[in-house]
Amino acid sequence: MALIVQKYGGSSLESAERIRRVAERIVETKRQGHDVVVVCSAMGDTTDEFLELAEKVNPVPPAREMDMLLTAGERISNALVAMAIDSFGAEAQSFTGSQAGVLTTERHGNARIVDVTPGRVQEALDKGRICLVAGFQGVNRETRDVTTLGRGGSDATAVALAAALHADVCEIYSDVDGVYTADPRIVKNAKKLDRISFEEMLEMAAVGAKVLMLRSVEYARAFNVPLRVRSSYSADVGTLVSGSMEDIPVEEAVLTGVAHDRSEAKITVQGIPDNPGEAAKIFRAVADAEINIDMVLQNISKLDSNRTDITFTCPREDASRAMQILKGMSADWQDVLFDDHVGKVSLVGAGMKSHPGVTADFCEALRDAGVNIELISTSEIRISVLIRDTELDKAVRALHEKFQLGGEEEATVYAGTGR
Amino acid sequence: MALIVQKYGGSSLESAERIRRVAERIVETKRQGHDVVVVCSAMGDTTDEFLELAEKVNPVPPAREMDMLLTAGERISNALVAMAIDSFGAEAQSFTGSQAGVLTTERHGNARIVDVTPGRVQEALDKGRICLVAGFQGVNRETRDVTTLGRGGSDATAVALAAALHADVCEIYSDVDGVYTADPRIVKNAKKLDRISFEEMLEMAAVGAKVLMLRSVEYARAFNVPLRVRSSYSADVGTLVSGSMEDIPVEEAVLTGVAHDRSEAKITVQGIPDNPGEAAKIFRAVADAEINIDMVLQNISKLDSNRTDITFTCPREDASRAMQILKGMSADWQDVLFDDHVGKVSLVGAGMKSHPGVTADFCEALRDAGVNIELISTSEIRISVLIRDTELDKAVRALHEKFQLGGEEEATVYAGTGR
Repeated sequence: MALIVQKYGGSSLESAERIRRVAERIVETKRQGHDVVVVCSAMGDTTDEFLELAEKVNPVPPAREMDMLLTAGERISNALVAMAIDSFGAEAQSFTGSQAGVLTTERHGNARIVDVTPGRVQEALDKGRICLVAGFQGVNRETRDVTTLGRGGSDATAVALAAALHADVCEIYSDVDGVYTADPRIVKNAKKLDRISFEEMLEMAAVGAKVLMLRSVEYARAFNVPLRVRSSYSADVGTLVSGSMEDIPVEEAVLTGVAHDRSEAKITVQGIPDNPGEAAKIFRAVADAEINIDMVLQNISKLDSNRTDITFTCPREDASRAMQILKGMSADWQDVLFDDHVGKVSLVGAGMKSHPGVTADFCEALRDAGVNIELISTSEIRISVLIRDTELDKAVRALHEKFQLGGEEEATVYAGTGR
Repeated sequence: MALIVQKYGGSSLESAERIRRVAERIVETKRQGHDVVVVCSAMGDTTDEFLELAEKVNPVPPAREMDMLLTAGERISNALVAMAIDSFGAEAQSFTGSQAGVLTTERHGNARIVDVTPGRVQEALDKGRICLVAGFQGVNRETRDVTTLGRGGSDATAVALAAALHADVCEIYSDVDGVYTADPRIVKNAKKLDRISFEEMLEMAAVGAKVLMLRSVEYARAFNVPLRVRSSYSADVGTLVSGSMEDIPVEEAVLTGVAHDRSEAKITVQGIPDNPGEAAKIFRAVADAEINIDMVLQNISKLDSNRTDITFTCPREDASRAMQILKGMSADWQDVLFDDHVGKVSLVGAGMKSHPGVTADFCEALRDAGVNIELISTSEIRISVLIRDTELDKAVRALHEKFQLGGEEEATVYAGTGR
């Protein structure tokens, strides 16, 4: 008998019929003799509807009240799933984030979990009940106010609960049935991975694989909670995310997959005087605006001008704000350029460490496909390049084929996941 | 400077635009220098939508989970009103029933308030904030589970909070602008009352006046909280419900109004052996099924048969259940009859005590209108009769005219109120 935490995304819960299907799966797990804790996201479009309503009432709604509003969504879905479970003859009890002991930082709208004290959940489990915990929400320690956890918050709730309850596994259910070697919508023979290490999953999530949010993988790795990525609509066992890359014997270490990302924009500051502190000035200004920078490139200065260029990428949604800030700075730069027609393609895999030719193969594959590289960034187990966004699909296919990541069958196509 | 508790019904909050209008009124009250605590019902049809969804997921949903689901409605409306208040430049803070210290009995779906400990609300008031409390909900003492308060629960929340905070007045806002001498949809010149005593309001509420729920009037009377019934859409001061009937000088005591009720059904048990305990048997069975009985009539037994008939009325929605129970009992009765084409019309007023001819005038008015009386029930300050439902409007008009309750102007028509 194991203790299993299951997390269901919003699209798996978007109607009464889907809620009943999810409930059936939960009851089945319980009938197999396991203890089950379930974390549900808000149903389908609930969150968007709330945001729209709030916008009409106040275009700049106070964050505390926004959290009070949004957390209603998970209460609704959890209560409905509990009712559905009851109809299948099992006993269920739902908990708000606060009742489940999810304690967070003060920051409304984007709080972090600081502790989970699931005493009431454990009690209910001991009585043989299936426990449902509202995802994406907690209560802050100082004022006991309701908080939300930002993007990926329900996954974070599930992983944190799994850690606190010493669960055997945390299953993440969505409409994706696992982690693939590439997006099956782009690469027809993309292969589902049976297993992937935390480090590889972190790299994949960081460079655009949307199946798991970076923060929940980080959390799972820190507390060593095995994750299983599964589909709500199939019996497939999905992909197990667990263990360290170090545990994989060198001979078995392979390349994991190709990820891509269309969500970034590129900003270039031209003609920067080549003095110490000029780059710091740029990055401090952007950091103060809480804009995350991803890739960075600084050209060496041309000998005749004593000026240099700095290029960086950041989320597209923050790019115009970054532009405003940089244009508004009184600095002796020649120009600030903006480009949102870029895409990033990455190759990830522990095998990279033991195969020295990977970078060369990578660049050759893109050259053969006629794709021009604008920026390169690497880690120990990853290579990422910035290219034109129109060439992204072609690049993903070329790399996937070059490194022979494909399977023999066509993959089932997946869509995006909820929060 | 006063402390004012305001309660807004669901129809006053059914859209973003109405929410902003309500917020404006709240801020205006605050700007007049008062402390303001607001209790909001769920927006418009939210509760019905939740009930429909629950029904699809589980036709017999567990009560605890139903409460978790339904209480989301008031969280949503309160957070939105708080946001709207913020947009008008005032500071607002919303509270769940639990955060506001609304403690209830265990019973899910129909809990009673046992105590209110509004420490956090008082703290926020002291900081100059407008406080919003989610109506219709609380938390039970033993298990700290979320409960709902049943019909009229938001009014009850408002009155209980007003009592606990020693508020000067509790204003009940809906689409009705006061308590009328009769339903203005039936009686064109029905008059809005400026003031009515608790006892009279209790009788009016008990016999069908829908503007206030019986339980909130009982609560207000017990804690001596003045109520003011007002409309969300006008500046009219509405009707003040306060003080005891005893305080009204005899010479000024008048008749308050005519109320009617279409929500009851009549059940007659025929041919009951005229032995002690037969009536008790009937009423115990109905009481055990938690069905409230209103009027009761027992005919004297006919000399030749030694059998009698008992007639009673109960809510129409419970009538078929009552029929099943009575038909299923092994008793020596001749028949059980059912009639849901009945209506009740009542005259209420403290003046009844000092005017002995009221009952005679009442019966004559109905006789002159050609209305047949099937059942009569009276209290110290009320006369109610059961008649055919098709004759209800005619009877209301006849009584209203006979006792000269009308004003000179035509009344504005009102609709039903939310929970």
